[in-house]
Amino acid sequence: MANDAYSKLMELYSEYSALGQVELLMGWDLETYMPQGAAEMRGVQSSVVGAMRHRMITSRKVKGLLREASRSKGLTEVQRSSLRWLKREHERKTSIPETLVKDMAKLEPLSTRAWIKARNENDFKVFLPLLEKVFELRSKMAEHLGYSKTPYDALLEDFEPGMASSRAANILKGLRSSLVPIVRTIADKGEPPDESVVRKGYGEKGQFDFGKRVLHDMGFDMEKGRIDTSAHPFTSGTYNDVRVTTRFDRKDLRSALFAFIHEGGHALYEQGLPKEHYGTPLGEAVSYGAHESQSRLWENQVGRSLPFWKHYAPILRKTFPNMKAVKLEQLYRAFNVVRPSFIRVEADELTYNLHIMVRFEIEKGAMEGKVDLNELPEVWDECYERYLGIRPPSVSQGCLQDIHWSMGLIGYFPTYSLGNLYAAQLMETARRELRDLDGSIEKGRFGPLLSWLRENVHSKGRLHRAEDLMKRVTGKPLGEEAFISYMKAKFSDVYGLAL
Amino acid sequence: MANDAYSKLMELYSEYSALGQVELLMGWDLETYMPQGAAEMRGVQSSVVGAMRHRMITSRKVKGLLREASRSKGLTEVQRSSLRWLKREHERKTSIPETLVKDMAKLEPLSTRAWIKARNENDFKVFLPLLEKVFELRSKMAEHLGYSKTPYDALLEDFEPGMASSRAANILKGLRSSLVPIVRTIADKGEPPDESVVRKGYGEKGQFDFGKRVLHDMGFDMEKGRIDTSAHPFTSGTYNDVRVTTRFDRKDLRSALFAFIHEGGHALYEQGLPKEHYGTPLGEAVSYGAHESQSRLWENQVGRSLPFWKHYAPILRKTFPNMKAVKLEQLYRAFNVVRPSFIRVEADELTYNLHIMVRFEIEKGAMEGKVDLNELPEVWDECYERYLGIRPPSVSQGCLQDIHWSMGLIGYFPTYSLGNLYAAQLMETARRELRDLDGSIEKGRFGPLLSWLRENVHSKGRLHRAEDLMKRVTGKPLGEEAFISYMKAKFSDVYGLAL
Repeated sequence: MANDAYSKLMELYSEYSALGQVELLMGWDLETYMPQGAAEMRGVQSSVVGAMRHRMITSRKVKGLLREASRSKGLTEVQRSSLRWLKREHERKTSIPETLVKDMAKLEPLSTRAWIKARNENDFKVFLPLLEKVFELRSKMAEHLGYSKTPYDALLEDFEPGMASSRAANILKGLRSSLVPIVRTIADKGEPPDESVVRKGYGEKGQFDFGKRVLHDMGFDMEKGRIDTSAHPFTSGTYNDVRVTTRFDRKDLRSALFAFIHEGGHALYEQGLPKEHYGTPLGEAVSYGAHESQSRLWENQVGRSLPFWKHYAPILRKTFPNMKAVKLEQLYRAFNVVRPSFIRVEADELTYNLHIMVRFEIEKGAMEGKVDLNELPEVWDECYERYLGIRPPSVSQGCLQDIHWSMGLIGYFPTYSLGNLYAAQLMETARRELRDLDGSIEKGRFGPLLSWLRENVHSKGRLHRAEDLMKRVTGKPLGEEAFISYMKAKFSDVYGLAL
Repeated sequence: MANDAYSKLMELYSEYSALGQVELLMGWDLETYMPQGAAEMRGVQSSVVGAMRHRMITSRKVKGLLREASRSKGLTEVQRSSLRWLKREHERKTSIPETLVKDMAKLEPLSTRAWIKARNENDFKVFLPLLEKVFELRSKMAEHLGYSKTPYDALLEDFEPGMASSRAANILKGLRSSLVPIVRTIADKGEPPDESVVRKGYGEKGQFDFGKRVLHDMGFDMEKGRIDTSAHPFTSGTYNDVRVTTRFDRKDLRSALFAFIHEGGHALYEQGLPKEHYGTPLGEAVSYGAHESQSRLWENQVGRSLPFWKHYAPILRKTFPNMKAVKLEQLYRAFNVVRPSFIRVEADELTYNLHIMVRFEIEKGAMEGKVDLNELPEVWDECYERYLGIRPPSVSQGCLQDIHWSMGLIGYFPTYSLGNLYAAQLMETARRELRDLDGSIEKGRFGPLLSWLRENVHSKGRLHRAEDLMKRVTGKPLGEEAFISYMKAKFSDVYGLAL
C-alpha cells in the first residue's frame, strides 16, 4: 500500500518535472528566438503552466499520498530521500497563500520596470517604494514558510537548501577577512597585466567556433544540447536537452569565451544528472551553490589556468591570426587581471566575492530590520569603500546595478560565493585523487576531470544535501581555506608577489 | 447567472488556448532547434500537456457550465457562436473513450515507423497490418463521434467542420471531370517550358533574403513572427507569435521561394485573426480548407502570376547575377510548368488536385468498407492511370508516399483541394471588388489585397462556418467554377493553347 503511494507520488512528480521542463523551454525561447511582440502571450502561457504546476504539487491528493507513503517501513535510502524532497516542495508551496503568490507575481513586472527606470535615470527614489514592497512581501513569505533564527533563512532555503544563514555568514566572514588584504596587496604592489593582448578585435564566427570546440572538448554533448546567443548568457534545460547561450564582444576575447566555459560547466552538471532518477525529486541539481561550483570550476580553475592555455594558445593563434605574436604568459596574465571595480558581473575571480558580501550583508540586514532601505545607497557605498577600497560614482554603478532584488530574488547572492568555495574544495580533492590532472589539461584531455565530477557530484543528483555531499566528497565541511590557498597560489604566480 | 457561466467558460477556454499555444511552441522547437537526443523527453512533455488540455475541455465543470450558459436568453451572435464551438469541442473530445485515445497515441509512432520502413524498402506488406489498425481505430472513433451518412463524415469534421463528405465528393467530382481533359490537352499539345532558367544554382543567403523581402512585402509582421529552416516547411503559432519555416534547394529557385510564399499565406491568416477574440473559440482559423485557401492564394494566384514577377524579376536579377539574362516570360513559364507526376508534394497547381482525389476516394472508400486495404497498391495505381495518365513505377512512389495515414490523419487530404477552390473564389471576388488588383501587384503593393482578406476572412475568425463565410464573401456556395476558369485562363496563357 505505502509503496503504492510512493509510486503514485513518483508518477505525479514525473508530470510535475515534465511541466517544469516545458517552463524551461518557454524561458529559453523568450531569451533567444521569441518575437518581441509575443511577450504578453508568453506571460499568459507561463502563468497558466505555472498555476497548473502549483496546483499539482499542492493538491490534497499529494498530501494524502505523502502521509501514506511516509508511514511505510522498509523504504530505501533513495526512497526516503525522494520523499523528503517532495514533502519539502509540497509544504513550502502549500504554506504560501495564493493571494501572496499572486501579489508577488503582479509586483515583479512593476518593480523590474521601476528598477530599469531608476538605473537609467540614476535615481534611487524611483525604485525605493517598489524595493520596499518587494522586501515586505518576501518578509511575509518568510513568516509563512517559517524559520528558526532569522527570516532570511526561509529565503536562502530556496537557493541553498539546508544551509542556515548564520553558517553562510560565518563562512563568508572568514573568506572576507582573508580576501581583503590580498586584494589590497595586489592593488598596491601588483603590476597590471597588459590587457591589450586580448582586445585586438575578433570576428563572431571565430569566437563561436573556438568556444564550441572548447565546449566539445570539455565533454558537452551536442546531441543533447545546443548553443545560441542571448543578451545575457545562461544555461537552460536538463538531462538530454541542455541549452547554453553566450554573447559576443567583438573587441574583447574574454567576454564570449569565459561565458562559454562558465555555461558549459552548468551544462555538464545537467547532462550528468543520474539517468535512473530522471523525472524524480532526486534527478535534479542539489543547490544553486553546487550548480555555481560547476560553472566556476570550469571557468576559473580550469579555463583561466596555465595548463589549459598551454593547450589552447596554439589553437587560438590559428583561429585568430592577430594573436600570433601573443605569448602564453601574456594570455594567462590577461585572463587573470585583478582590479577592484564597481560592477559585479565584470569582476575578477578574487574581488567577485567581495561584491557578493556587500549584497549578502545588506539583504540579510534588511530582512532582519537592521538595514533601512531608505539608506541603501549610503550603506552600499560604505561597504564598497571598506571591502574594495573604492566608492561608486553613482547609484547606477552602485546599488542599482543588479536585477535580482527587483525580481524578488533575495537569498540568491550568497550562492555565487558558496559556489566558488565548493569549486575550490572539489578541485583540491580532484587534484589529490587524480594522477597528474594538470598534465591531462595541458593535453586538452578533460575526460578524467569530468568523470570524477560525474561520479562524485553530477550522478548524485539530490541524494544528499549540498553540504553533506561536499563533505562526503572532500572529507571536509565547507570552508574558505581551499579557495584562499588557490587564490594565493594563482595570484602570487600571476603577479609575482608573495601573497 | 448564465452570463456568469459564459464568462467562466471563456476564462477556462483562454487557459485551454494558452496551453494549445504551448503545444505549438513545443512542436515548432521539435522541428527546428531541439537537440536530437531530446526526442523522448519531448514526447513525455507533449503527452503531459496534451492530457491536461484534454482533462480541461472534457471536465464535468465544463459540461455543467455549458448547460447553464446555453439556457440563457439574450446571448449575442458572438456568444452563441462561441458556445457552439466550445460545445462541439467538449462533446467530440468527451465522446471518445480514453482507452481509444491512448491506443491511437500508442499506435502512431509504431505505424509511422512501419511506414518509413515500408517506403524505404518499397514493400507495402510491411505497412499493411499497421495501416489496417489505423483504419480500424479511426472507424471506432467515427462510431463514437457519430455521423448521419458515412463514418468518413465524422473524421472530415475534424478538418473541415460542417462539410458533409457527400458535398465534398460532389464538388471534387465536378472538379475532376473538368481537370482531366485540361491536363490531357497540355500533356499532349503543350510545349514544355524551359526549367533550366530557374535551375542555375542559388546561395542560401540570397534565397533567404529574397524570400524574407517577399514575406515582408506581403505584410508578414516580423515583430510578431519569425522565419527559420526545417526539413519540411510549415507554419506554427498564432496571433503575435507566428513562425514560418522553409528549406533550401541550392539548385532550384522554386523550392524555398514558393514555400516562403505559401507559409506566408498561412502566417498572414494567423496574424490577422480578430484581436477581440484572442483566446476564445472564435479567435481561431475556421477550417483547414480555409487555411489552405490563404496559403494557396498567395503562393499560386499571387506568387505565380505575371504581375507579381513584373515587380520581382528585376529584384531577383539583382539578388542573383546568374539570372541577369532570364526574361520575365521565361520566369513566368518556368514557375507554371504543368506535368503529370507521381509525387503529390512536387505536383503543379493544376494536377495537384488529381493527386488529392485519388487519396480522397481511397480513404473514404476504405472507411465505408468499399476499398480493401489489401489491394491498395493496385487501386492506387489504377486511379493514377485514370486521372493522370501515368502509372507509379513502385509503391514508394505510389501509395506509400504520404505520411498522413500513418499518423491517423484520415479526412485531411480533401482540405488541400477545398483550399484551392476557396482561394479561386476569393480571388475572383477580390478582383471584382478591388480596383486594379493586378496593377497594385505589379507595383509590389499587396496592401489592398491583404486588407481585403483581413476584412473578409481573417478578422472573422470562427464567427461563421467556413462555407457560410465563403458564401457571405463571394455570394456563391463553394464550387469548382472559379478555379476552373482561373486554370483555363492561366494555362491558356502559359501554354498558348485554347483550353
